[in-house]
Amino acid sequence: MIKPSIPKGTRDFGPAVVRKRHYIFQTIRETFELFGFQPLETPAMENLSTLTGKYGEEGDKLIFKILNNGDILGQAQMAKDSRELATLLCEKALRYDLTIPFARYVVMRQHELALPFKRYQMQPVWRADNPQRGRYREFYQCDADVVGSHSLLNEVELLLIYDRVFSRLGMQGYEVRINNRKILSGLAELIGKPEQLMDITIAIDKLDKIGIQGVEKELLDRGLSQQDVDIINNFLRIDGNNDEKLEQLQVLLQSSTTAQKGIAELSFVLNSGLAKFQSPPILDVTLARGLNYYTGLIVEAKAPPSVKMGSIGGGGRYDDLTGLFGLPGLSGVGISFGVDRIYDVLEELQLFPATAQQGTRVLFLHMGEQSLPAAFQYLMQLREKGVAAELFHEPAKMDKQMKYADKRGIPYVVIIGENELQENSLSIKNLQTGQQQKIKVEELAGFDFK
Amino acid sequence: MIKPSIPKGTRDFGPAVVRKRHYIFQTIRETFELFGFQPLETPAMENLSTLTGKYGEEGDKLIFKILNNGDILGQAQMAKDSRELATLLCEKALRYDLTIPFARYVVMRQHELALPFKRYQMQPVWRADNPQRGRYREFYQCDADVVGSHSLLNEVELLLIYDRVFSRLGMQGYEVRINNRKILSGLAELIGKPEQLMDITIAIDKLDKIGIQGVEKELLDRGLSQQDVDIINNFLRIDGNNDEKLEQLQVLLQSSTTAQKGIAELSFVLNSGLAKFQSPPILDVTLARGLNYYTGLIVEAKAPPSVKMGSIGGGGRYDDLTGLFGLPGLSGVGISFGVDRIYDVLEELQLFPATAQQGTRVLFLHMGEQSLPAAFQYLMQLREKGVAAELFHEPAKMDKQMKYADKRGIPYVVIIGENELQENSLSIKNLQTGQQQKIKVEELAGFDFK
Repeated sequence: MIKPSIPKGTRDFGPAVVRKRHYIFQTIRETFELFGFQPLETPAMENLSTLTGKYGEEGDKLIFKILNNGDILGQAQMAKDSRELATLLCEKALRYDLTIPFARYVVMRQHELALPFKRYQMQPVWRADNPQRGRYREFYQCDADVVGSHSLLNEVELLLIYDRVFSRLGMQGYEVRINNRKILSGLAELIGKPEQLMDITIAIDKLDKIGIQGVEKELLDRGLSQQDVDIINNFLRIDGNNDEKLEQLQVLLQSSTTAQKGIAELSFVLNSGLAKFQSPPILDVTLARGLNYYTGLIVEAKAPPSVKMGSIGGGGRYDDLTGLFGLPGLSGVGISFGVDRIYDVLEELQLFPATAQQGTRVLFLHMGEQSLPAAFQYLMQLREKGVAAELFHEPAKMDKQMKYADKRGIPYVVIIGENELQENSLSIKNLQTGQQQKIKVEELAGFDFK
Repeated sequence: MIKPSIPKGTRDFGPAVVRKRHYIFQTIRETFELFGFQPLETPAMENLSTLTGKYGEEGDKLIFKILNNGDILGQAQMAKDSRELATLLCEKALRYDLTIPFARYVVMRQHELALPFKRYQMQPVWRADNPQRGRYREFYQCDADVVGSHSLLNEVELLLIYDRVFSRLGMQGYEVRINNRKILSGLAELIGKPEQLMDITIAIDKLDKIGIQGVEKELLDRGLSQQDVDIINNFLRIDGNNDEKLEQLQVLLQSSTTAQKGIAELSFVLNSGLAKFQSPPILDVTLARGLNYYTGLIVEAKAPPSVKMGSIGGGGRYDDLTGLFGLPGLSGVGISFGVDRIYDVLEELQLFPATAQQGTRVLFLHMGEQSLPAAFQYLMQLREKGVAAELFHEPAKMDKQMKYADKRGIPYVVIIGENELQENSLSIKNLQTGQQQKIKVEELAGFDFK
């Protein structure tokens, strides 16, 4: 018999991990709800045609496809290459992100939805990426998007959501960095090569990894002149506080009306005075975000610098996402939380509260048939009070039962032996302190199993 | 452009439905936790070899397989039939139930788990069944299992979980029916054909659908004699209250030690006196449950008879599930909730509480730039108090903003016009009653948006 295993890049989540993940999800969900976002869930399987062509050529290769059921041999014989074979054999595929299913949903329900539609979605996605540290083939995304509104109030609200969630999680030192794609467009205009916007964006996006000289080289490789590169260099060296940066942008990009629009948008988001942030967003002109559908604000959330983790969330404004499915003209803006990375950050900084790790609070020892009815009665009494409690499943040596409590991390055991039975009392042992005390049965309901 | 759609048998869950489903999940989860069960989550994808052969030949056909990435054309050409082709092209498959992944997990983690291991799991599963009313290709299972204990206390606890969940959901008239596979084994022994236990089980399992004469015919078709059928008939006609039924079983099956063991187990579960049920389990000797791995208690939960729905949950004790993966000798017992059907029952009986359907409570109207800072400030104040609130995204006609609140089902709007701004007041309109009142801004934090 082969040793059982799971597919590479996937994970089992045991009890402790599920609880801690649940705490993160709950914090995010609660915030989404307070801000008026509504939950949506879409199927794990989408029609392959819904997904194909939406994530670039590289993305298409990483989509997990689901084999059609029934007779597939005949169809297989018609294929000329692997790609065609996959299309012949598969009509369905696994969700690759939450954005495309959201757009698909909006188009299907356009006549019943109240616009703007503010939805959040927290579900797993699947990608056939090569697994590595922090990168999995199955992972959760947590997205909030507003579709059907151009108002910059949405940008402000989404930034406040980041602020509230990271503050609530106790993640001191997190940073929310923002920029605007219109500024990058303006830059491309300034050097007279608007058609190379994507080349410029992709190169700048690598700044963190390859440094400014690497970006320079990449820009030259992508066909920009040394003069162009010098201008971009000046742009990347813009520095100071948010207001100082905005001023420098204003000067450098004054000839581009697109850039001016981007600067005005950033000004509003940073200086509207409407929102009070725990940790105000930072304007970062070098922020580019590779994905090409953004058209306005772009945002990236970063873990505290003491943790080597980088991005723990991102998003931006995109025009016309639903246009892909035949409903043009709807603008959208959204953010996403990287739950797996947030988990690692909280773990490293030991920020999970004790309550996020609590399971069973009390184990009733099984002291034999005689005291079983009493034990069961008090067990149920605690449960009715909302205290998670268990009874050891069989009479066994005290030592064995204690070991079970210990291994499970159950902090209290209740002992009802002959003495306790006669006295109508219970002995309660706190396994963390080793303290044991006897209480009257009437006191149980009020006892604090903290 | 093709109209977007989703694969047949799958569903989008919009906001109202997600909230109501969440309420069911929460009720079940809370109960599982109170009873000391621990959460587990396994990947959507399992190795195909983990799943194959575990669900019978019919089940194997219904497993959704995931196409390998990379070059598949070469391998495809080696296949002689569709089945072989699928095995050549697919290493992974979608989870078909939660039980096999659980068993696989227990075997992988056997050295670190505290036994008995009480786990719950609430995740979607996928089956390539033909979709029909109440049957989907993607649906959730909610399972609780105990593995590593023979104690009948587990049976009692699991029945109490059913009792608590259905009571909490307000589902008056639900029934929990139980039987024991050892009794069916005893019956097969009694007629001298223990090897036909599965035939007998499968025939009896259809009683609800085909009636007693149908069962008779099926038993004869499956090679039992008229004399055998008469005995089974007597068995199926056992009637009365639980104690009367136990007595009749005792008499009819006295020659079978296996049956006697089953009767003793049922006796304990029904008459231990440990548990107090809102709605005590009913002994139903005709309950068979088709799945063949059960070896002790079997249980089925039924919706109130006023709703034509049938089973809303089931389970039982199985020996040696982990033996499939090389770890023999672990006994397990578990139950499952049919969330989709429970949803339909609660909907039909209008049992979803108002709180399970609440989203945003308050919409601040956007009355123009002048009052925007005030509106935003009070908006944030409410959110800090835990009240889900929104601001309309742009200045627009009152009528349009009201329509949005109405379409979204938001019960209150707050209006800050020129007057309110001057007076430091807010106008609050209850859209359900039509009543509007003016309050001082200091009163907002204490206002009850119920």
